[in-house]
Amino acid sequence: MGKSFFITFEGGEGVGKSTQIKILSDYLEKKMYKNIITREPGGTENAELIRNIVLKGKVDSWDATSEALLMFAARRDHFIRKIKPNLDNGISVLCDRFADSTMAYQGIAYGKTGLGVKKVEDLYKIVLGNFTPHLTFIMDLSVEESLHRIKKRDIDSINRYECMDIEFHKKLRLAFLDIAKNNKERCVVIDASKSIDDIHNEICNIIELKLLSK
Amino acid sequence: MGKSFFITFEGGEGVGKSTQIKILSDYLEKKMYKNIITREPGGTENAELIRNIVLKGKVDSWDATSEALLMFAARRDHFIRKIKPNLDNGISVLCDRFADSTMAYQGIAYGKTGLGVKKVEDLYKIVLGNFTPHLTFIMDLSVEESLHRIKKRDIDSINRYECMDIEFHKKLRLAFLDIAKNNKERCVVIDASKSIDDIHNEICNIIELKLLSK
Repeated sequence: MGKSFFITFEGGEGVGKSTQIKILSDYLEKKMYKNIITREPGGTENAELIRNIVLKGKVDSWDATSEALLMFAARRDHFIRKIKPNLDNGISVLCDRFADSTMAYQGIAYGKTGLGVKKVEDLYKIVLGNFTPHLTFIMDLSVEESLHRIKKRDIDSINRYECMDIEFHKKLRLAFLDIAKNNKERCVVIDASKSIDDIHNEICNIIELKLLSK
Repeated sequence: MGKSFFITFEGGEGVGKSTQIKILSDYLEKKMYKNIITREPGGTENAELIRNIVLKGKVDSWDATSEALLMFAARRDHFIRKIKPNLDNGISVLCDRFADSTMAYQGIAYGKTGLGVKKVEDLYKIVLGNFTPHLTFIMDLSVEESLHRIKKRDIDSINRYECMDIEFHKKLRLAFLDIAKNNKERCVVIDASKSIDDIHNEICNIIELKLLSK
């Protein structure tokens, strides 16, 4: 059984996470690293039920604390039923968003109405203990470009977060950069304004260096 | 504006919580204490959405950690949207189950697959801070009698917990008695095998003594 890795992609809306995950999956497959693609909130039948009640509805339909609890409930199910069993079977897991998103959104960017860093860290420990991703790519993009990309999307696919104002998206960007700074061993910031190919090559190089060659 | 109280009713399935809440509500109303009846999980539109995904489904559909997180997410919504606003407006809140149920079920009675006391206490602090009920009635009944009463119910109204085996219900009873012992100021154990009228009188006397006369 080969080595398996848990690699997460984080960042604001419209930064190109899912595109990069797809081409990285093919690349790893060619290198004989079996892998699956998954996402949060969601990834299992139960977690998708939670996703449905969190992402739909009005912008203020949940307060930050309820929301963080729902995200971690979904994450727990995702972790025990999909992420851990796959990693244990030698299959790498590429995940579109993970706990850094809860920290960035509900912990930091919500500001005074948010939970703050400490409570999100406490929740993380209760739910996941010492488990962390092997590597996290923080996809960084100017808020203007990010919102420009969101606007091109089908109106039905836009979720509650994408409806929040520009100030929120600015705080969110800074929150992700803060998380990267405080977790230098695990996180790498990627300039998401580059071309898809350039970003892919950069990601592959980092994975080679930090995971595959070790 | 009059005094308002948050009074919770706890205990296993079929111990007569909802019956006692209804007649207590009438009693308090007659004594000019405005009050509302509510329940957990649920009590608000959002929390009922969560109730639906927790109580339906197979016995093992959620692990104890996901389940506790979902319960606290529902509780948070219930607290900020219904319990606290009513108490602040001088209206007492009578609640069928509250956080002691999460402690008894997911914290203690689930045993090795459960969260344990410490993690449930930590979740409580994150979600509710120092807020606690003014008074909690722990309705205590032998497991045999409790299961006998559940069996009389309409099959469609039976939930996941009511399907669990007799050993689980025994652990649950002991868990509630433990909680009462560790929270003597707040909790009163009621012998739920007595008649409805006797129990009601006992509850009214305790409320008079512990809350109304102070």
